[in-house]
Amino acid sequence: MSKLDYQVASEIVIFGALGDLSRRKLLPALYQLEVCGLINEDSRIVGAARQEHTLEEFKAIVLENINNFVKETIDKDVLARFMNRMVYQQLDFKDSSSFEQLKETLAQGNETRVYYFSTPPAIYGDICKGLDSAKLICDADRVVMEKPIGHSLESSIEINNQVSEFFKENQTYRIDHYLGKETVLNLLVLRFANSLFTNNWDRNCIDHVQITVAESVGIEGRWGFYDEAGQMRDMVQNHLLQILSLLAMEPPADLSADSVRAEKLKVVKALQPINRDNIKDKAVRGQYSDGFLNGVPVPGYLNEEGANENSNTETFVAIKAEIDNWRWKGVPFYLRTGKRMPKKHSEIVVHFKQQPHNIFKDSYSDLPSNKLTIRLQPDEGVELQMMNKIPGIASQMNIQENKLDLSFSKTYNDERVVDAYERLMLEVLNGNQSLFVSRDEVEAAWIWADSIIDAWQTTNETPKPYPAGSWGPVSSISLIARDDRQWVE
Amino acid sequence: MSKLDYQVASEIVIFGALGDLSRRKLLPALYQLEVCGLINEDSRIVGAARQEHTLEEFKAIVLENINNFVKETIDKDVLARFMNRMVYQQLDFKDSSSFEQLKETLAQGNETRVYYFSTPPAIYGDICKGLDSAKLICDADRVVMEKPIGHSLESSIEINNQVSEFFKENQTYRIDHYLGKETVLNLLVLRFANSLFTNNWDRNCIDHVQITVAESVGIEGRWGFYDEAGQMRDMVQNHLLQILSLLAMEPPADLSADSVRAEKLKVVKALQPINRDNIKDKAVRGQYSDGFLNGVPVPGYLNEEGANENSNTETFVAIKAEIDNWRWKGVPFYLRTGKRMPKKHSEIVVHFKQQPHNIFKDSYSDLPSNKLTIRLQPDEGVELQMMNKIPGIASQMNIQENKLDLSFSKTYNDERVVDAYERLMLEVLNGNQSLFVSRDEVEAAWIWADSIIDAWQTTNETPKPYPAGSWGPVSSISLIARDDRQWVE
Repeated sequence: MSKLDYQVASEIVIFGALGDLSRRKLLPALYQLEVCGLINEDSRIVGAARQEHTLEEFKAIVLENINNFVKETIDKDVLARFMNRMVYQQLDFKDSSSFEQLKETLAQGNETRVYYFSTPPAIYGDICKGLDSAKLICDADRVVMEKPIGHSLESSIEINNQVSEFFKENQTYRIDHYLGKETVLNLLVLRFANSLFTNNWDRNCIDHVQITVAESVGIEGRWGFYDEAGQMRDMVQNHLLQILSLLAMEPPADLSADSVRAEKLKVVKALQPINRDNIKDKAVRGQYSDGFLNGVPVPGYLNEEGANENSNTETFVAIKAEIDNWRWKGVPFYLRTGKRMPKKHSEIVVHFKQQPHNIFKDSYSDLPSNKLTIRLQPDEGVELQMMNKIPGIASQMNIQENKLDLSFSKTYNDERVVDAYERLMLEVLNGNQSLFVSRDEVEAAWIWADSIIDAWQTTNETPKPYPAGSWGPVSSISLIARDDRQWVE
Repeated sequence: MSKLDYQVASEIVIFGALGDLSRRKLLPALYQLEVCGLINEDSRIVGAARQEHTLEEFKAIVLENINNFVKETIDKDVLARFMNRMVYQQLDFKDSSSFEQLKETLAQGNETRVYYFSTPPAIYGDICKGLDSAKLICDADRVVMEKPIGHSLESSIEINNQVSEFFKENQTYRIDHYLGKETVLNLLVLRFANSLFTNNWDRNCIDHVQITVAESVGIEGRWGFYDEAGQMRDMVQNHLLQILSLLAMEPPADLSADSVRAEKLKVVKALQPINRDNIKDKAVRGQYSDGFLNGVPVPGYLNEEGANENSNTETFVAIKAEIDNWRWKGVPFYLRTGKRMPKKHSEIVVHFKQQPHNIFKDSYSDLPSNKLTIRLQPDEGVELQMMNKIPGIASQMNIQENKLDLSFSKTYNDERVVDAYERLMLEVLNGNQSLFVSRDEVEAAWIWADSIIDAWQTTNETPKPYPAGSWGPVSSISLIARDDRQWVE
């Protein structure tokens, strides 16, 4: 029995195979799975795109991208095996005869077809119709959808409806690549394989949680595209809520998709609504102005190339999220994410409650609480800040905050960092939906996010400016300071 | 205001000033306090011993010992100040006129007298009588007693009675030098300054605790002396029970001597008695036989120089101690201490309970529990063993036990290691009894230890042999294996 006996042979069809995501992420990820022997030997990779290309031309493009985006030395045998899987199909997404050609290209056996929609969502419906008209959808087939799944509840319903007309929910794999990140997956292990944390994971023991996802980059030449979305849709509605729901969910009975996703959904549904009434207390939006990053002057959002100088789109969001359930009542989850912040820096900090009584007040009048920091990037790792006695002689017992530290890069320095798409591709091939976002979850997240966006629009307040290279507008500091707390520095 | 305003000037009188303990520990410790400016400038150090010496001769002896036992470079000014405190008094402990001479030597002001009994306990009574007859005891004076306080409940009562006839309990400082060790003091901080541990510190969260104090040395030329005591009296009744009581005590309301010692006493009193009925299930004694240490052959206990080859004295003890109270019912504290073990190695390992449910059983069928290890020596530090995801791609989510580590030597590499006697001397000078053993505690510990010793004597079983350089007799492994647990390796 090979280790892949459970994985059926697939026809992996990438729609938009020549696009940016496919070239940078999907093809390199599939190559890495090939290196690890994790693709069934009979599986093929079918590139589908509008352009006309011979197979050899397509292979040349694939090779170029493997060379560009795979850091390790390329193994010739592996590469040959990988290239041998390649098939190219020129496709007019709106033309059903085009799909008849695809049908001829695809294997006619029992292979499961994996349809990866790496195109703008506007085309999903056409692809589905084309596949259906050529009778290319059966129950075992899978569809993979990239974010964004819409830009609001309404548009996400529209997209999901277009796809769900042809694919059932258990065939549908919605990607949020944060769910494929090693450090995000480790949240499950930290929480549910360590009794020390499991026993302390509630309102009795935790004071509050901070989630920071800071980027130092700006909008990287895609001003118009970004301006349509903004940081709330681009980062909070998906990535930050995914982290929050993994942190806050009840222990699932097992790791099956049903169990994990049901628990995550409950968290998103229990989020306290933020609306026109409480928006000022609960959320801050910001927009970067001219500033400096690492000593180099960088333009503000409204001075970027292609900018509309009247844009009110936010590039920074800070939110005090609260979960109205038994476990978390009264425990705020402070979320913060922005562009053009001082550094790329993502971390979760769980602040445990202060000791109810301080017997060390002679040496430490205000005893710091224990903190569990989960560093998502860079320098992935886990640290626990706790109090210890400072060695040395003195009349009082001097104590101090120290770190127990586990750095993944130091601990596992031989391991290649696995890209999120490798993990997610593998899960699709294995038919495991645990790490994909259910429709219910997408919609619950939009309901919560839409209400915040609506409140911002109707109050008509402009985003608070913050200099590029800073940690966001002053209001985001006040947001947490009002609760007598502060962002971890 | 100087930092020593709270410390009154003292006459520090060391009885047995020329003995081993005084020369190796007490004088160097006082010198270190001098270095740190922690002795009141008007305090003097009075060496008292049988031998006749001039002050200059005594100073020469002190200097020799400072040079031998202080590792750091000697500061001339500090040394001069220290030597300037020295006084010598030749003393016949049984002769009251001798104490009249001492009285003339001592300052006649309001100085507090600190009497350090660094002599065999048999002489304590004589010293007390001598001091009393010369009217050298008043309420502010303090007496410091070295262990052993007897070799049984009965003899400890006798010694304590002799002293308590002249000194009240609040004047009496009984030394257990483990209470001055940095890592032992850190137990208080770990437990009571960290909510993560405070919240997990009971029978609901902890499975069991292991305390190991292993020595690689044998009996170091003091066979006859050691043979009278054995490991139970020499290590368990005092040091291991002190560690156990700090680990297990209820949180004290403050760090005062009254509060801390009351809580420790409750633990010792709640120890489940081990007696003739249950000795075989609860305790193992061993005696080392010929073996190898670091590849070098070393003689067994009965083959050491001066040995009585019929001795049944134990050089190793393993005990399953249980505390019959609300917090600890059903949580064993496994104690183990011995001579001629593979290395000098003292540590506490707190084993938290296994997770009640394992959602990672596909990759880890038997999930290891979290463990908090407190390394007492060598490489003092704290580590937390916990589960993390192994980075890397694989079909199952692979998880692994890792350490979050805090090494004191790495963290505080500039700090000199403070000897236990420095801390304890300072506490005596400051008049703080928290780190000294109360009479009640000594007696409760003897009641528990005597019962075990009595059971061994009456069952007449000989100690189990273990080769020098091993971790003790096989029975000590069975002791814990019967509970489906094992000693940490």
